[in-house]
Amino acid sequence: MDPVVREAVDGLPASMRRIAGYHFGWWDTSGAPIRAELGKSVRPALVLCAARAVGGDASLAVPAAAAVELVHNCSLLHDDVMDGAPTWRHRPTVWTAFGVPEAVLTGDALLASAFRVLAEGPAPFSVTAVVELATACQRLCEGQSEDVSFERQVEVSLDQARRTAVGKTASLIGSACALGGVFAGADHTRVESLRRFGEHIGLAYQLLDDLLGIWGDPEATGKPAGADLTGRKKSLPVVAALCSDTDAGRQLAKLYRHGDPRDAAATARMAGLIEEAGGRAWALGRADAELAAADAWLDELSGDPNGIAELRTLADLITYRDR
Amino acid sequence: MDPVVREAVDGLPASMRRIAGYHFGWWDTSGAPIRAELGKSVRPALVLCAARAVGGDASLAVPAAAAVELVHNCSLLHDDVMDGAPTWRHRPTVWTAFGVPEAVLTGDALLASAFRVLAEGPAPFSVTAVVELATACQRLCEGQSEDVSFERQVEVSLDQARRTAVGKTASLIGSACALGGVFAGADHTRVESLRRFGEHIGLAYQLLDDLLGIWGDPEATGKPAGADLTGRKKSLPVVAALCSDTDAGRQLAKLYRHGDPRDAAATARMAGLIEEAGGRAWALGRADAELAAADAWLDELSGDPNGIAELRTLADLITYRDR
Repeated sequence: MDPVVREAVDGLPASMRRIAGYHFGWWDTSGAPIRAELGKSVRPALVLCAARAVGGDASLAVPAAAAVELVHNCSLLHDDVMDGAPTWRHRPTVWTAFGVPEAVLTGDALLASAFRVLAEGPAPFSVTAVVELATACQRLCEGQSEDVSFERQVEVSLDQARRTAVGKTASLIGSACALGGVFAGADHTRVESLRRFGEHIGLAYQLLDDLLGIWGDPEATGKPAGADLTGRKKSLPVVAALCSDTDAGRQLAKLYRHGDPRDAAATARMAGLIEEAGGRAWALGRADAELAAADAWLDELSGDPNGIAELRTLADLITYRDR
Repeated sequence: MDPVVREAVDGLPASMRRIAGYHFGWWDTSGAPIRAELGKSVRPALVLCAARAVGGDASLAVPAAAAVELVHNCSLLHDDVMDGAPTWRHRPTVWTAFGVPEAVLTGDALLASAFRVLAEGPAPFSVTAVVELATACQRLCEGQSEDVSFERQVEVSLDQARRTAVGKTASLIGSACALGGVFAGADHTRVESLRRFGEHIGLAYQLLDDLLGIWGDPEATGKPAGADLTGRKKSLPVVAALCSDTDAGRQLAKLYRHGDPRDAAATARMAGLIEEAGGRAWALGRADAELAAADAWLDELSGDPNGIAELRTLADLITYRDR
């Protein structure tokens, strides 16, 4: 799928091609090739493995893999603008390096190119795929929009936080798996099983990512330590702690509301309070439950056993799981 | 096409539906119906008339009309964020009323829904149409991106300014006409004639809009008087004046570089200098030339004479032309 993403980026108008190539980690700001950290391509890998799991030819699903990656990267570009995030994968974000308008417009151009790549894909499936991906985009936008609204909201319930995580992460990952099924010519039931599998994997992935946003090693994540806490993000483990009805949870609520975001000691203290309130254990437990639910959907799936085994291995890799 | 746009907006997730309805002028910020000024629907009208001009059934082109309008409105939402524009059609812009993230995300959701509406359109044409619209989006983004870069650029040539206007306005209007042809089942030659017609109309439209940005009545435009001058926009008449090699042009260049944007008297003086340097006359002359070129493409078009006559009348309406 990498060549298809490259081709899509090559097809962008010059000014945005340069910016997109910078964002993907291929080039520096002037367009010269560099060796930067590349994306993990979780979503495209899922598209291709999902196609094989139902006995399809993965090469037919390549346009869908590329399209999903393009949508994901549009959302990263726009996200960084909305969050004001200064760095991503150890490099300045696009809005920092090129400006806010350029980041917004390059995101828009990537989004448009996702639909173009899909429409240029194998004929009988491309129309279904465009509708599928557009729906996933809208859910993604809704998830992001709820996430943003949490910052202004004093109380967020675990149910709300979960719904938001489904929107902003699980929907697109579910859709990636569904698209693999669509391009493999799978019937509706199997496409929906793949989607449900993907949604559970996506939720597990978000839970683990939320833990990294609190306890992740900056070297590995490319973000400052405790970035989500400094940004007062109401991520799932945080909301679990805030809703825990424990002393630690109540202390955390106070710090979240009145603490100084520049106070590094307070950030460290918050992480401790989340753990004490059970937020970390809850998130790990939930992630396990989501992975088990995902497994159950694969158990039900009739398809190619080797392909299904591969999809299982991929899901383990994505969610850092040793069996 | 209005019901299709309404349906597309109704299909958005709740948070963004409310924002989109506010933007379209249907509702106030709380979602209650109001009577606000609505858009002129120039682009959808062109899609439908173009379909009839080549003997097609306009009703089949309705999804394309709606899709083009959705793309246009995504670009308005994102534009206002990038420009920091406080009002639009006499009301606060979406980013002012709801916040920057909400404006970015609602724009993204509208863009996705444009492709969804197209893909759900009549089968044999929808794939071609998705590729067509995605390409137009990318050109639109490029035009906007060049427009933004002009603000940092000391010298802009007329050629650059024209190319930018083609990208940011004429491409989508050309594509609107081409899409009308596509959904009417027209052959490649006639689709391309419609596109060329639309591009010329689009350029004329942009030239006239640029004149309104300098001399337009705030009551009619919904923007402050001389808004483009206050924003130091390098619109076509301004660039024509700056490149005119006249005293007035050189004085204008100085004011553009060093004048205080809050100085209303200086803004008024700029408008005078543009006129003196021939920028206004040049823009009016260019608009006439573009309209004549558009006419010539219609003269060549084989199709339904009544439909072609209607398309001509629509073009006159859009460009304020009395024959």
